Amino acid sequence: MIKKYSIKELLDKGKFFINKKVLVEGWIRSFRYSIFITLNDGSTIRNLQIILSKKLEKEIQKKITIGSSIQVIGIITESIGKKQSIELQSLEITIYGSVDPSILQKSILQPKRHSFEKLRKQAHLRFRTNIFSCIMRIRHHMAFCIHQYFHENGFFYLHTPIITTSNCEGSGKMFQITTMDLKENSIDYTKDFFKCKTYLSVSGQLEAETAALGLGKVYTFGPVFRAENSNTSRHLSEFWMIEPEIAFFHLEENINLAEDFLKFIIRNVLDKNMEDLLFLNEFLKKWRKKEKEHLLDKLELILKFSFKRISYTEAVKILIQEEKKQNIKFFHPVVWGMDLQSEHEQYLVNKYKIPVIVFDYPSCIKAFYMRINNDGKTVRAMDILFPEIGEVIGGSQREERYEILLQRIKDTNTDKNKLWWYLDTRRFGSVPHSGFGLGFDRLVQFITGMNNIRDVIPFPRTPNNAEF
Amino acid sequence: MIKKYSIKELLDKGKFFINKKVLVEGWIRSFRYSIFITLNDGSTIRNLQIILSKKLEKEIQKKITIGSSIQVIGIITESIGKKQSIELQSLEITIYGSVDPSILQKSILQPKRHSFEKLRKQAHLRFRTNIFSCIMRIRHHMAFCIHQYFHENGFFYLHTPIITTSNCEGSGKMFQITTMDLKENSIDYTKDFFKCKTYLSVSGQLEAETAALGLGKVYTFGPVFRAENSNTSRHLSEFWMIEPEIAFFHLEENINLAEDFLKFIIRNVLDKNMEDLLFLNEFLKKWRKKEKEHLLDKLELILKFSFKRISYTEAVKILIQEEKKQNIKFFHPVVWGMDLQSEHEQYLVNKYKIPVIVFDYPSCIKAFYMRINNDGKTVRAMDILFPEIGEVIGGSQREERYEILLQRIKDTNTDKNKLWWYLDTRRFGSVPHSGFGLGFDRLVQFITGMNNIRDVIPFPRTPNNAEF
Repeated sequence: MIKKYSIKELLDKGKFFINKKVLVEGWIRSFRYSIFITLNDGSTIRNLQIILSKKLEKEIQKKITIGSSIQVIGIITESIGKKQSIELQSLEITIYGSVDPSILQKSILQPKRHSFEKLRKQAHLRFRTNIFSCIMRIRHHMAFCIHQYFHENGFFYLHTPIITTSNCEGSGKMFQITTMDLKENSIDYTKDFFKCKTYLSVSGQLEAETAALGLGKVYTFGPVFRAENSNTSRHLSEFWMIEPEIAFFHLEENINLAEDFLKFIIRNVLDKNMEDLLFLNEFLKKWRKKEKEHLLDKLELILKFSFKRISYTEAVKILIQEEKKQNIKFFHPVVWGMDLQSEHEQYLVNKYKIPVIVFDYPSCIKAFYMRINNDGKTVRAMDILFPEIGEVIGGSQREERYEILLQRIKDTNTDKNKLWWYLDTRRFGSVPHSGFGLGFDRLVQFITGMNNIRDVIPFPRTPNNAEF
Repeated sequence: MIKKYSIKELLDKGKFFINKKVLVEGWIRSFRYSIFITLNDGSTIRNLQIILSKKLEKEIQKKITIGSSIQVIGIITESIGKKQSIELQSLEITIYGSVDPSILQKSILQPKRHSFEKLRKQAHLRFRTNIFSCIMRIRHHMAFCIHQYFHENGFFYLHTPIITTSNCEGSGKMFQITTMDLKENSIDYTKDFFKCKTYLSVSGQLEAETAALGLGKVYTFGPVFRAENSNTSRHLSEFWMIEPEIAFFHLEENINLAEDFLKFIIRNVLDKNMEDLLFLNEFLKKWRKKEKEHLLDKLELILKFSFKRISYTEAVKILIQEEKKQNIKFFHPVVWGMDLQSEHEQYLVNKYKIPVIVFDYPSCIKAFYMRINNDGKTVRAMDILFPEIGEVIGGSQREERYEILLQRIKDTNTDKNKLWWYLDTRRFGSVPHSGFGLGFDRLVQFITGMNNIRDVIPFPRTPNNAEF
């Protein structure tokens, strides 16, 4: 039997294969002079050039159209062309599925530039495009190295529930789940599947805390949901989040971990996905005319320096000063106690030209579970702000003191009864602990340089949009 | 600053640390003779023995109770005891959270045997128990090695949507999602969040197929949902599933992959989790009186032989024969065309004493997307049957021929309009492709030897049960 290889394997090892007989399978990207086929199989952005060594019968030749799927058996030879080091001299060709050129014309597989909107409307086919396959490969490598990072650092992967009865943060609208017939007039939740109102989780953090308070170091990596009607280029109704949670861990350690983690991911993508990055880089330069912003430079810059760390109070002071000094007008005037808006965050990031970590936010704008500082006014929260995408990580040291936590729950009008188990962990050997959340898709967006977050996830879910 | 170590690091390297000053943190498992503390931090099933080197003040001594969390700075010394090679001579102790013994008594942290039912009712605390922490560590290692397996074999990890408009298999009841106020009398889905009826996904397979038909090899690993009212020890309403999907792949290759994959996971757990497995093994022998079934033997047996492969038709023939010959009475008499029941599956597994792969099932009992064989009656489906848990993997070669797939969709009363994108992939370079699904939690159940699947996932979701 002739051994099958992926195009990536063949091109990576190149000359090693010369004169070897191999089998490849893939989809035709181009067919020129009735003799040259370029083939792609998804394993890499690169194509394999195939040379038809004998004249094909007319019937078969007609079926060799762009988009068609074929199997080729042939001999690898050195290529004379400059684009590739090897090519495949075909001996046998099998056609699996031929594409009718008239159908192809209307699809995004037609080899020309298509808008991202059009690509999204044919989401089931966009895995076949250069741009989206690059993004998907990068997404994979990012996800894998995230598991690797935590595994190698002694964390345990935790599957927190998607179906939940509580709203972790009190923030964010939630999707409700039911199995009842909604046509009925009276809705009685005691008759519903879980005998109560249930929702799709917005965060696994509270459950992850209970696990960290036993296993030491844990992390989640799963889907979370927001039912907000946000039709922006940065929001999804369903997205993937990573939430590490560590016992015996203070805010400073949490910040160090987060910075190290982000740099690890970016370094890994630079190590493992260079050909995909280079393709995206060319794409951005050419099609978006973003010549000033070089994707690789942007990523290298993140690795080069320590992130800037400033307290919220300092940040507010700086923003007020700069507003006075430089005559900058913010749409939202800066006052201590307010939540920083995108414009303020971007201003800070632009000022320092590196990611900025803001910590010790006012308690009044943050969630109940964050640890109160001795000043009684601020909490041990931190946000990491990136260029382009803004907040990429939000985290905190958690309030581990039972009485104070209980008071914060009351003060924030959080339903104590639904959180009895969470409170309970503070009575059984409570310890200082911390964690953070990283929006995975948003980081993919940053690394790939995409304008719209819908272009970095296979089948995006947004308001009015769950077709396929 | 004194360096912090996990208890796993200390015990793994043992004598390397002798005479070194270290810092450890964890929860007290026992306190004897006012001098010996055993400490656990979740990193391992093993405890570190701590020797209080000076008499503590009464006030502090009172706080050293079971379950309390402490930090210890001390010097590692060789242990005279037989149970451990090293121990920690304490210099300084800090108590983070002391547990009131009267509270402890009612909790599962009280050091005595508790029923699994009781553990489940305190799911937020069970990460602190030996048995559940073993299971969670094994679960982590399994999940990690699954990502590793696919990554190293050129698969791309794919995040398929959780919120969906279609029911993949036509089988299985689904949870509905809404953001509407269910108290209102008239339910108008055009006013709902996604402008249509949406559900929680039962499988990412159809979406994964579209990705494989571009990227070549992909896999999913995410939560899926079943709204069936099954209160059994093998069913969850929310569970994690792994679904690889491979282009240019026939059923035989799919079966080979599935067998190799299962063996890889089990080999990995035997390599990486021996101490947790040994604990579980002892537990099963002692408390369940399952002396006959040795957990390690059971796992080794899976690795030892090739799985038995028989077609559905052969299987039915064998079952009918054996029924005649051995006077075995099945509750469901065997007839060609019926779905095999648990009793039949278990009979086959017991007969061969190894996992059994049944393939080529009747089309009438399988899903529309499975490839029809030339006999017109059977489809290229396969199930892998394990001892104890039954079906652990179900897979198939997919119908790649447009016209036949369309016919199958009609014949099975599947809604064609909702699957336009799925059908569409068969018009753009369709290829033979295959994949399978593995219920992750059920495999964890098998490997850890647990009777109830609710004891292998942090916060199980089952009918009437979504409290926390």
